[in-house]
Amino acid sequence: MKFPRSILVAATAAIAFGAAHAADPGYFTKYDGMRMSRNGAGVLLVEMNTQGGPIKFSAREHEQFVDAFYDIGRDRGNKVVILTGAGGQWMGDIDFASFGNVADPDVWSKVHDEGTQIVENIANIRVPMICAVEGKAWVHTEYCLLANVIVAGNGATFHDAPHFAGGIVPGDGIFTTWSYRVGPTRAEAMLLAPKPLSAATAKEWGAVTEVVPDGRATSRAYEIAADYLKKPEVTLRNTRIHFVQPLKQALVQQTGYGLSLEGASASALVKSFNASK
Amino acid sequence: MKFPRSILVAATAAIAFGAAHAADPGYFTKYDGMRMSRNGAGVLLVEMNTQGGPIKFSAREHEQFVDAFYDIGRDRGNKVVILTGAGGQWMGDIDFASFGNVADPDVWSKVHDEGTQIVENIANIRVPMICAVEGKAWVHTEYCLLANVIVAGNGATFHDAPHFAGGIVPGDGIFTTWSYRVGPTRAEAMLLAPKPLSAATAKEWGAVTEVVPDGRATSRAYEIAADYLKKPEVTLRNTRIHFVQPLKQALVQQTGYGLSLEGASASALVKSFNASK
Amino acid sequence: MKFPRSILVAATAAIAFGAAHAADPGYFTKYDGMRMSRNGAGVLLVEMNTQGGPIKFSAREHEQFVDAFYDIGRDRGNKVVILTGAGGQWMGDIDFASFGNVADPDVWSKVHDEGTQIVENIANIRVPMICAVEGKAWVHTEYCLLANVIVAGNGATFHDAPHFAGGIVPGDGIFTTWSYRVGPTRAEAMLLAPKPLSAATAKEWGAVTEVVPDGRATSRAYEIAADYLKKPEVTLRNTRIHFVQPLKQALVQQTGYGLSLEGASASALVKSFNASK
Amino acid sequence: MKFPRSILVAATAAIAFGAAHAADPGYFTKYDGMRMSRNGAGVLLVEMNTQGGPIKFSAREHEQFVDAFYDIGRDRGNKVVILTGAGGQWMGDIDFASFGNVADPDVWSKVHDEGTQIVENIANIRVPMICAVEGKAWVHTEYCLLANVIVAGNGATFHDAPHFAGGIVPGDGIFTTWSYRVGPTRAEAMLLAPKPLSAATAKEWGAVTEVVPDGRATSRAYEIAADYLKKPEVTLRNTRIHFVQPLKQALVQQTGYGLSLEGASASALVKSFNASK
Amino acid sequence: MKFPRSILVAATAAIAFGAAHAADPGYFTKYDGMRMSRNGAGVLLVEMNTQGGPIKFSAREHEQFVDAFYDIGRDRGNKVVILTGAGGQWMGDIDFASFGNVADPDVWSKVHDEGTQIVENIANIRVPMICAVEGKAWVHTEYCLLANVIVAGNGATFHDAPHFAGGIVPGDGIFTTWSYRVGPTRAEAMLLAPKPLSAATAKEWGAVTEVVPDGRATSRAYEIAADYLKKPEVTLRNTRIHFVQPLKQALVQQTGYGLSLEGASASALVKSFNASK
Amino acid sequence: MKFPRSILVAATAAIAFGAAHAADPGYFTKYDGMRMSRNGAGVLLVEMNTQGGPIKFSAREHEQFVDAFYDIGRDRGNKVVILTGAGGQWMGDIDFASFGNVADPDVWSKVHDEGTQIVENIANIRVPMICAVEGKAWVHTEYCLLANVIVAGNGATFHDAPHFAGGIVPGDGIFTTWSYRVGPTRAEAMLLAPKPLSAATAKEWGAVTEVVPDGRATSRAYEIAADYLKKPEVTLRNTRIHFVQPLKQALVQQTGYGLSLEGASASALVKSFNASK
Repeated sequence: MKFPRSILVAATAAIAFGAAHAADPGYFTKYDGMRMSRNGAGVLLVEMNTQGGPIKFSAREHEQFVDAFYDIGRDRGNKVVILTGAGGQWMGDIDFASFGNVADPDVWSKVHDEGTQIVENIANIRVPMICAVEGKAWVHTEYCLLANVIVAGNGATFHDAPHFAGGIVPGDGIFTTWSYRVGPTRAEAMLLAPKPLSAATAKEWGAVTEVVPDGRATSRAYEIAADYLKKPEVTLRNTRIHFVQPLKQALVQQTGYGLSLEGASASALVKSFNASK
Repeated sequence: MKFPRSILVAATAAIAFGAAHAADPGYFTKYDGMRMSRNGAGVLLVEMNTQGGPIKFSAREHEQFVDAFYDIGRDRGNKVVILTGAGGQWMGDIDFASFGNVADPDVWSKVHDEGTQIVENIANIRVPMICAVEGKAWVHTEYCLLANVIVAGNGATFHDAPHFAGGIVPGDGIFTTWSYRVGPTRAEAMLLAPKPLSAATAKEWGAVTEVVPDGRATSRAYEIAADYLKKPEVTLRNTRIHFVQPLKQALVQQTGYGLSLEGASASALVKSFNASK
Repeated sequence: MKFPRSILVAATAAIAFGAAHAADPGYFTKYDGMRMSRNGAGVLLVEMNTQGGPIKFSAREHEQFVDAFYDIGRDRGNKVVILTGAGGQWMGDIDFASFGNVADPDVWSKVHDEGTQIVENIANIRVPMICAVEGKAWVHTEYCLLANVIVAGNGATFHDAPHFAGGIVPGDGIFTTWSYRVGPTRAEAMLLAPKPLSAATAKEWGAVTEVVPDGRATSRAYEIAADYLKKPEVTLRNTRIHFVQPLKQALVQQTGYGLSLEGASASALVKSFNASK
Repeated sequence: MKFPRSILVAATAAIAFGAAHAADPGYFTKYDGMRMSRNGAGVLLVEMNTQGGPIKFSAREHEQFVDAFYDIGRDRGNKVVILTGAGGQWMGDIDFASFGNVADPDVWSKVHDEGTQIVENIANIRVPMICAVEGKAWVHTEYCLLANVIVAGNGATFHDAPHFAGGIVPGDGIFTTWSYRVGPTRAEAMLLAPKPLSAATAKEWGAVTEVVPDGRATSRAYEIAADYLKKPEVTLRNTRIHFVQPLKQALVQQTGYGLSLEGASASALVKSFNASK
Repeated sequence: MKFPRSILVAATAAIAFGAAHAADPGYFTKYDGMRMSRNGAGVLLVEMNTQGGPIKFSAREHEQFVDAFYDIGRDRGNKVVILTGAGGQWMGDIDFASFGNVADPDVWSKVHDEGTQIVENIANIRVPMICAVEGKAWVHTEYCLLANVIVAGNGATFHDAPHFAGGIVPGDGIFTTWSYRVGPTRAEAMLLAPKPLSAATAKEWGAVTEVVPDGRATSRAYEIAADYLKKPEVTLRNTRIHFVQPLKQALVQQTGYGLSLEGASASALVKSFNASK
Repeated sequence: MKFPRSILVAATAAIAFGAAHAADPGYFTKYDGMRMSRNGAGVLLVEMNTQGGPIKFSAREHEQFVDAFYDIGRDRGNKVVILTGAGGQWMGDIDFASFGNVADPDVWSKVHDEGTQIVENIANIRVPMICAVEGKAWVHTEYCLLANVIVAGNGATFHDAPHFAGGIVPGDGIFTTWSYRVGPTRAEAMLLAPKPLSAATAKEWGAVTEVVPDGRATSRAYEIAADYLKKPEVTLRNTRIHFVQPLKQALVQQTGYGLSLEGASASALVKSFNASK
């Protein structure tokens, strides 16, 4: 058998490469809606926040989080990722007005493109991901359900505040992820009659893995992460890849269309509002 | 940029069209197995019945319901659909003999074609759908599980009377829908050892959304419908479209084959019966 | 083995049912955009037309054809279906303005729902389908590509006049069907730089099965249909079902989203038009 | 209509064929890791064992079971299949070293090919399959979850001993089947923090159909099998085919990749082990 | 990091296993419809034949080839597989009567099960596969199209003799494979109006890779095989796995249903024949 | 109807946001393997190069291009993207040794993760993409085939130099994209017997849209881009999204596994090389 000389070189001299990306985590401070810190073992803690307190999700975060999750996923220095909130809330509020006139096709085009990209970018975080929930998880819980396990404080509540309650389609991946995690019937009922769901019920339904005393979610997540870190890095990465693949495929198939349907409903909402003025 | 003149006209003069379909709901009285009535808000009540009493499903209904569900889906005058039975029973009985000689390939061809079409037509009802169950839901519960939410009277029972118990494959969508709603293990066990399932168990498994006192299922469905109607029509339509899409795709993929497998088993049943004469 | 008595009856007395649907083809004259006639062998000729001449497709046809194709598919009296135009044209023109203000979410919701339903209804015509093309096939050629074979007159041309040329996304199934029939690269190139395609080229690409002298497409289609009719009816129906299934699944997956993307582009087109006034 | 003479012969004289395969079940004694016996009704009991006692799964079984399950599936003499263990254990132990150097690409290629084939071969057993669990089901429970129903002794426990606990990806179908049977969240949590799961919990989660007193699982399986046997053989075969199809498709899509990801993790494990020597 | 002792053993002492399967190719002489021989390099030549001459495919082969292809796929001693015919014909004839009464559900159940299994078993041959065609390839060409490349003698012809021409649905994988290889339009037209297709046309359509002088197909296949053998075995196996995966998934999804539809058409054919007696 | 106040604000005051991303195209100069420039109309020209001359693809580009394509896709200032090479070559050479020891699981893990991400990032460029080919397109042509149209100089050649010719599986998306564009048979034959393919043949097969005189590919691409720019931006974006979706889904499904299979083959290649030393 005759192979190119290059193989010879490659096989006998393993050349280090790729360290660069991990070496400069400049993105840690790039997105003001996410405070990021990483311990020596490579556990990245991502705290979603607004000026240090509970995050109020706005169009700004909708744009920035796309890239933030991408940067997290691309950085091989991250070995496990913990996603949480700040100020005792995972994410309780949204500034809907910040999105501008959602009936404008150019505005919604941006929402559509970012929305489809953001869930793919989280699915492409190729290390175990733990969601640590305290207080309200009332907005964009699909980010949380893309984690492998969810640890919730006893008083945590899950809810879909912005969609059907606000008059628009829950089309951004929230149905896809809840349906995947708790089955479609519970997902449909919950999204059509949205009200806060207790951590205990979420656990009974299988969405939450562990319920801990309030304030303990993140520390418990660190313990779980420490357990994971006993395994080889390739094992961690490839287990995540294997586990997330069916959900990723479902999101790739359903989210774009869902956001388009949501955009049309937002346009109809604006129309009905204008008509009622 | 230069666009055809037609765009100009279209954009400046929104011309009403399509009202016709909604204006003449002649199909309300076309199918004797379904009594239909619609309130002023657009909530269509569909009561499956046989001469006003509990429905006994026969080949006649198998043919007619295909078109009935199609007409319901096509009528934009319907804003929410409630599917229920009559005489205190959702659907408790079937007249198997009415289908004729199911070993005849021409007979089964019709069953196959109608059976695949009927579940697609229900999936294509593009407004929220509520199933209100009283008494026995022992036949064709897949129609019910295609609704977004199910409200059941306390004494309601779910069952698959006609298939495995009768010696044929549960291939008409009943496995696909139960598997989708309660998971495949419970669906398989239930269909292989069919016996009535209580409303409470169905709720525990996640198939039923609410259990109400007997006789209250339809009125509760109206209350839920009224809540939905506070949202823009496009929101209602597009939410249904988004939610039903994965189940629709599963049915399109699985039901035709399932009915073919069921047809072969029906033919084998007739053969074994003839052999035992 | 013990089976219900009903089986006994069924197996020994094959009861005729279902003839009703075929007996009353009232839909033949229901849709003025389609002239329908059926010969004694069950070959249905569908001539799309506007007052007997070449059809100018409008919102009226968009609504009516949904139901027309459904009725055709449901009528077991149809053994083979030939789809053609009138006045020497398959379909050459569209009245875009008739759709009204396509930036209105309620208007587009109707377009979306009809558009997804129409291609599914054609896919659900469960007998062999032949498309006979004369003259221009410039609009909604996806109806034609849903046939099993296409016979084209020598001077026939294929084109996508209404979409990219008019400033909107080719999202109604035209990409899905052309991609399925001639491969995605040719489909993309053709739809992004739309111009008439000769019958010869369409045949070379594999989309057209036979090219015949102008004016002979329909008579040739009848000859092909006559050949098919030598086979049992179940063979004809099931061959169609088997052949169309992959395309049907692709359409179910892609068309709704495609139409939503097209709707957003139509809204942007209106916006840009208004801005340029 | 004119058909080939062969049809005439075939239709008037049903010729027996294919009995051969069932007539010579030589494979019953071919695989020393499986003791097989079949009662007069066609119920095949498969007892996985090592020299009559609890099975210790090794590379030898990994190779042989591929063919064993294939032979079981191909033998039309089998009407129902019961899969169980021996010595009071379903499968509690694995001899990982027997697989050799899993970092060797030729070694893993064999593991990959056998591993993808084995789950497909079980899925292709086209008769109802019952898994009877006693004691530990700690290894390769995906074989068990490919059954239609699972009967477990009260003291039975489910576990994934060899994968994440051992430092490698749970990629051989164990995630796919558990995710299918109990939902992905419970599957992910269980596989990432593997510990024995009681029969009661497995039943609560829907994976186990019945819990019986210890030592009674197989006899209960025989009772269930006897119930099934009252139905025509085609009904049994086709019901299995219909029910297993979605899981089979998921396994065909996910298992090969899963095993490749697992192989890379095994290689990394060996590397880290060598590095720590 | 602490790993089980077993890893240590495994990583330091690569134990040979699995040679057994390759060592005893007893299946070479097990199936009289296939003459098998393997050269020193591991190229297996499979000559389908009837008593040494051109094969006449019958129910016997339908049963035996399932297992023959399985054995070929399982034998790691095979490095490349060449599939050809004998007596100057690839496969020109079929003994339809040998299948017995295809209207009998038990008979067709066997055809269905074997038919779905056979194409999966060919797809699971995990080494490059070359089809060498001489003379008529008129029956079961899907076996040939499952190869990676096809070499055809100049006078070879491709045809589907048994299905639509005989009055039944081309549902056994022949549509799926031809559609995959030459596009659905050509596949549909060819299967609905079956007539011999020249090697040149098959090459123009992309189904045939090389046309060689008559009688040279097998020797050319050996040359191609020799080229492949310069690559590592894992490369050969994994390239095949990667290339065949989309077709395998299509076959798993479509063939069972296709065969059920074909079975119903066979039953209708028998019925129409009996009626015309 | 009562909606949150936020809607009111949003609907009446369209707030500009998101301009930031487009405003600072710092990534234009970030990746030394890509020279980027954008004209006033928003057409981005991407010239892959090595120090201004023909690009020699190395591990450095494999890492950087992932992010480069991501940045291109995220920048809404890009209206059309042209991908080309430099120095008269699209991409003719690869530095295989730069990847290091591909048998090391940590090294290949990085290759796998980058390789799956890179094709997804190109698929997520949500504006029309034109590939302009001059000279050799011998490496990573899947990047090119992810464009909507390909313009090739008359002397351009397409080839897969690094995979099967070098002894490894063509698993990085090259099979998936070629199979999608020219059909699987031609793709398999070409990848198993790799040699340069002329632009004319690539056009005949449908992969190339236009062949132009050498040196004219990029200028022709600009002309095509100018045509596209006459349409609304949402139309351009959504047409790309609609067209690329099936290919994106195929890549998401197939590329990760393909790269894993390729990695195992690379490991086997290194092993065989070491063995032959």
